[in-house]
Amino acid sequence: MYITLPNEKKIDALPGESILAALRKEKVYLVASCGGKGVCGKCKVRITHGEADIRSVITLTEQDIAQGYTLACQAYPKSDLSIEIPKESRLIVGDKIAVGRADDLIKLTEKFGITTLSPLVRRIPLELRHPTLEDNISDLERIKRGLNAEDLESVERLHVRYDLLRLMPDALRKDNWKVTVTIGTGEIPELLAVHPGSEATAYYGVAVDIGTTTVVLYLVDMITGKLIDVGSTYNSQMRFGDDVINRIVHATEQGRMKDLQQAIRSDINALLDPLLERHKLTSDDVDSVVIAGNTTMTQLFYGLNPQYIREEPYIPAANAYPEIHAGQAGIRVNNGAPIFTVPCVASYVGGDVVAGVVASGMARREVFSLFMDIGTNGELVFGNNEMLMTAACSAGPCFEGSGIKCGMRATEGAIEGVEFSPETFIPELKVVGGVDKPLGICGSGMIDAIGDMFLKGIIDQRGKLQPVSPQVRKGEEGMEIVLYRDEQREVEIVLTEPDIENILRAKAAIHAGYSVLLNNIGFTMDMVDTIYIAGGFGNYLDIEKAVLLGMLPDVERSKFVFLGNTSIIGSYLCLLSKDIRVEAQEVASKMTYLELSVSSSFMDEYMSALFLPHTDMSRYPSVEARLNKNIDNS
Amino acid sequence: MYITLPNEKKIDALPGESILAALRKEKVYLVASCGGKGVCGKCKVRITHGEADIRSVITLTEQDIAQGYTLACQAYPKSDLSIEIPKESRLIVGDKIAVGRADDLIKLTEKFGITTLSPLVRRIPLELRHPTLEDNISDLERIKRGLNAEDLESVERLHVRYDLLRLMPDALRKDNWKVTVTIGTGEIPELLAVHPGSEATAYYGVAVDIGTTTVVLYLVDMITGKLIDVGSTYNSQMRFGDDVINRIVHATEQGRMKDLQQAIRSDINALLDPLLERHKLTSDDVDSVVIAGNTTMTQLFYGLNPQYIREEPYIPAANAYPEIHAGQAGIRVNNGAPIFTVPCVASYVGGDVVAGVVASGMARREVFSLFMDIGTNGELVFGNNEMLMTAACSAGPCFEGSGIKCGMRATEGAIEGVEFSPETFIPELKVVGGVDKPLGICGSGMIDAIGDMFLKGIIDQRGKLQPVSPQVRKGEEGMEIVLYRDEQREVEIVLTEPDIENILRAKAAIHAGYSVLLNNIGFTMDMVDTIYIAGGFGNYLDIEKAVLLGMLPDVERSKFVFLGNTSIIGSYLCLLSKDIRVEAQEVASKMTYLELSVSSSFMDEYMSALFLPHTDMSRYPSVEARLNKNIDNS
Repeated sequence: MYITLPNEKKIDALPGESILAALRKEKVYLVASCGGKGVCGKCKVRITHGEADIRSVITLTEQDIAQGYTLACQAYPKSDLSIEIPKESRLIVGDKIAVGRADDLIKLTEKFGITTLSPLVRRIPLELRHPTLEDNISDLERIKRGLNAEDLESVERLHVRYDLLRLMPDALRKDNWKVTVTIGTGEIPELLAVHPGSEATAYYGVAVDIGTTTVVLYLVDMITGKLIDVGSTYNSQMRFGDDVINRIVHATEQGRMKDLQQAIRSDINALLDPLLERHKLTSDDVDSVVIAGNTTMTQLFYGLNPQYIREEPYIPAANAYPEIHAGQAGIRVNNGAPIFTVPCVASYVGGDVVAGVVASGMARREVFSLFMDIGTNGELVFGNNEMLMTAACSAGPCFEGSGIKCGMRATEGAIEGVEFSPETFIPELKVVGGVDKPLGICGSGMIDAIGDMFLKGIIDQRGKLQPVSPQVRKGEEGMEIVLYRDEQREVEIVLTEPDIENILRAKAAIHAGYSVLLNNIGFTMDMVDTIYIAGGFGNYLDIEKAVLLGMLPDVERSKFVFLGNTSIIGSYLCLLSKDIRVEAQEVASKMTYLELSVSSSFMDEYMSALFLPHTDMSRYPSVEARLNKNIDNS
Repeated sequence: MYITLPNEKKIDALPGESILAALRKEKVYLVASCGGKGVCGKCKVRITHGEADIRSVITLTEQDIAQGYTLACQAYPKSDLSIEIPKESRLIVGDKIAVGRADDLIKLTEKFGITTLSPLVRRIPLELRHPTLEDNISDLERIKRGLNAEDLESVERLHVRYDLLRLMPDALRKDNWKVTVTIGTGEIPELLAVHPGSEATAYYGVAVDIGTTTVVLYLVDMITGKLIDVGSTYNSQMRFGDDVINRIVHATEQGRMKDLQQAIRSDINALLDPLLERHKLTSDDVDSVVIAGNTTMTQLFYGLNPQYIREEPYIPAANAYPEIHAGQAGIRVNNGAPIFTVPCVASYVGGDVVAGVVASGMARREVFSLFMDIGTNGELVFGNNEMLMTAACSAGPCFEGSGIKCGMRATEGAIEGVEFSPETFIPELKVVGGVDKPLGICGSGMIDAIGDMFLKGIIDQRGKLQPVSPQVRKGEEGMEIVLYRDEQREVEIVLTEPDIENILRAKAAIHAGYSVLLNNIGFTMDMVDTIYIAGGFGNYLDIEKAVLLGMLPDVERSKFVFLGNTSIIGSYLCLLSKDIRVEAQEVASKMTYLELSVSSSFMDEYMSALFLPHTDMSRYPSVEARLNKNIDNS
């Protein structure tokens, strides 16, 4: 029997094999935190054609069932099937897009002067002397003596947790006093693991970017520093709210913090499983972890009540997070693996931004830079090696495809570029992965589409669709424009007026944010040397279109540097180097946070920026020139 | 209704009140780890007269039930009752005997130069500035800023565990940013608790001696250093074996380590409950803990497999134990209270001995001392401020009343002194607490009785009872001597020949131990300046009789110093002072352990010492002289 996927790929399903198992065989991964037991409810798919034996739908809502969803792990094909995979069920392994600038990672380590790795842990093989009646020091002292011989510093102060102490005596004796110990290289050295056998083996680390919408994980070889693989998935906290505010409400007013903590833990574990499987590793092979997330994501990951993040004066529980063992944090790598948390700055400027600033290098430069991270929210940092100012503007998750009718993340099948023919107004599409059957539209695709529609008169200054193109029509939610249609597959990708309004609000918030931030300290845009743009745009963002949209300022184009997902890149750098971890701490403590929500000028700036590109056209001279040129040409 | 206790004390029982509750009202405490829910099975009593409504006996063995035992918490009097309380059910609160030399504790702190307390924690009241939009640092940073103002060192490195971080935001806001924080004063300062309110309150610590047979707990005021109260109980691990070897077998061969760990944890908690109740304290008021125990007790407390302690070459998992929070160790005081474990030396010389050496002060003196701790085992230390040698000899638990027909600990009602009339051979008794109805005989009573019987010819050199006294008779286990008889109460206290043999074996092991230890390094007994004697003898040990027995060497009597329970006293000192904790670590690492079990001379010495006082009478000239004098007199 065959299972046909939305991209028409056909997968062979053996008798007695669930949809989940059949897909996994062909490296199509779904989120399945429970390992396919039918209890986590995350591997939702919709069977559009064919019949399957459904064993359980116990974790689905009535609404899900009414819409035809089923659990892939509980559905066994009885005939050829066609299925739809909702975006939140997808787990992308080997995600080249999520890597962002990962092809530049080696250059990056050079740029940052990381010549020797200084990870959170060291693995040290030891061949210990056997105990005798004459040499009868304790097991722990024997390990310390062995480490002393290896020139490890401060061995006398070596800390060890009791759950490891319980395993240590047997581990020492299993391979006849040959062991490999993992030592945490923090302020006080800590014995983190004792593995039988003293053959030097590879060991690994993971860097995790916990985005509000997307979770990305790097698996890294900790001897070479090389990126081994990448996984990404939607943050399954999305079930409890699209943005941080709704999640805080879920955690506090509904008292369901555990839901959120559990969701992100299991997302990370669900990402780890297939990566380890692909590279024939066990969870014990991974013994260091770096995570970066915004302040709410970080607090939720650690189960810290986020209530006061939401209430004025917006106070986080902590900005610098103590080191913790993976076992305590519920992450399925080596139990004692230390987790370094990239520090946060304030309630709405988190470790993701700090990681981004570190990755950009702006805090090492004398000239002034503006850094903008456009994820589910917009965060802005302005400064140089001496001062750093930061602010946050609630741009919402639309650039990550959330809250947009046909929105999706920048993964294979996403429309990332749109150009309308000036004659026919028919769009030409650029699709991630070069596939010819797009599945939806991602942030850069929306920016492209709206910028181009504005330039070509398909939308007006307020984002309203004009009936100039045959693609424009009336839909369920008002006017909409069809970007792609496949009658055979019954697939349509549209942008609706509410989608466009959503994006205009987001770009207005970002524009207002950096305008107020600069203005507040008496800077103007022409004093900015470089503008770093980070965010979930995949590998592509058309700067010109983003200026047309009025999201980016109308300055010399060479000032723009597009960096991709800097949160994961900064985390990766922290995983490799102690100097970078120290730098992250310094960057975080150096940043001054400006609260925009109480600034009256922010609201004025926001209102003016809701237009395309801006009410004050003098701020967008190049756009004005292009529009005038268009009018002249017509 | 009345409940009559073995000491004829009558306690009023109200209708609907369990025996446990009635006794507790009158400050007669039973071990009831489960709080009287009928599930821990520890509050066993035997009803000898009268009727009670028995609700449950689910946790008793068939044998217990056959012998008439019931659970005090599940038995409700229906008439006047008489009950017997087995020793293992008793929990002694305000145990003046267990205090040992606690009346000298103030002198002790002077002797040790403890002028200022330096406990494991400090409590610091803080009145923090309220956060505002301008002053929006995180909750944790706000606490750090408050501590900086209090001149606490290394605040920037302040560690905090996540379970506290989760409670901190609400605790800060509960009393309007007035809090009292508990700071651990270890190598890296740690935030251990945040209590709402900034009124300085008292705080407490506990020192625990985990003996193989007895558990003793001191409750200490950590502002004044004053001992507030004392509790003691039998170590309920006794159910799983009398000595460490049997417990190791239970833990390893039977795979039941959890039983042992759970037993000692619940003993400590059972001791804490009534002490806190008596002084109107909550578990949160106690925020530091010191424990001392022999190596096996320490490993079992922490759940560390003791298998290799028993197997040659006898290797403990660790000697120096990392600090741990009480919550993690299952002790019901403040969750974050640090536990300092007095370090061990080797598999058979533990933290109890190290605490004892510290308490004796021998490691600070230039002259040479011999320290002997006679508990469930005998441990010996010889040395001075430059060298310390140590050895262990398996004396067995007889001096603590275990394995002796009418044996008991040195608590109220124990016979602690016996002197036979030279004419009638009728014994005159000295009873702990001065009560006139003894309940059993403790270690010092046995030493007294046997020494005196030997002197007066009631036993011969091999410990065999002679038919010279009307008190000597044939019993179930061979010959025995009746020390006390109360026909009305149907109580008899006897010493049997197997009891006497038991004690001879124990004293022989001790004698052989110190003889070999001294000999091994070329010392003789006359080179010893002071002989410190520690152990569970209560407040009384007749040195003269212990010499007659051949347990102590026949040297100038002024050389003997009787110290009582030095394990708890040393722990108490560690609780008060960082210098003492450091001293304990130095003492432990300075001690050289001599393994007696592989010494051929040990077995020879042991065999010679099985006689009264010793085969080689030249070692006991004063005893020989007394015996000769007796013969001359007769």
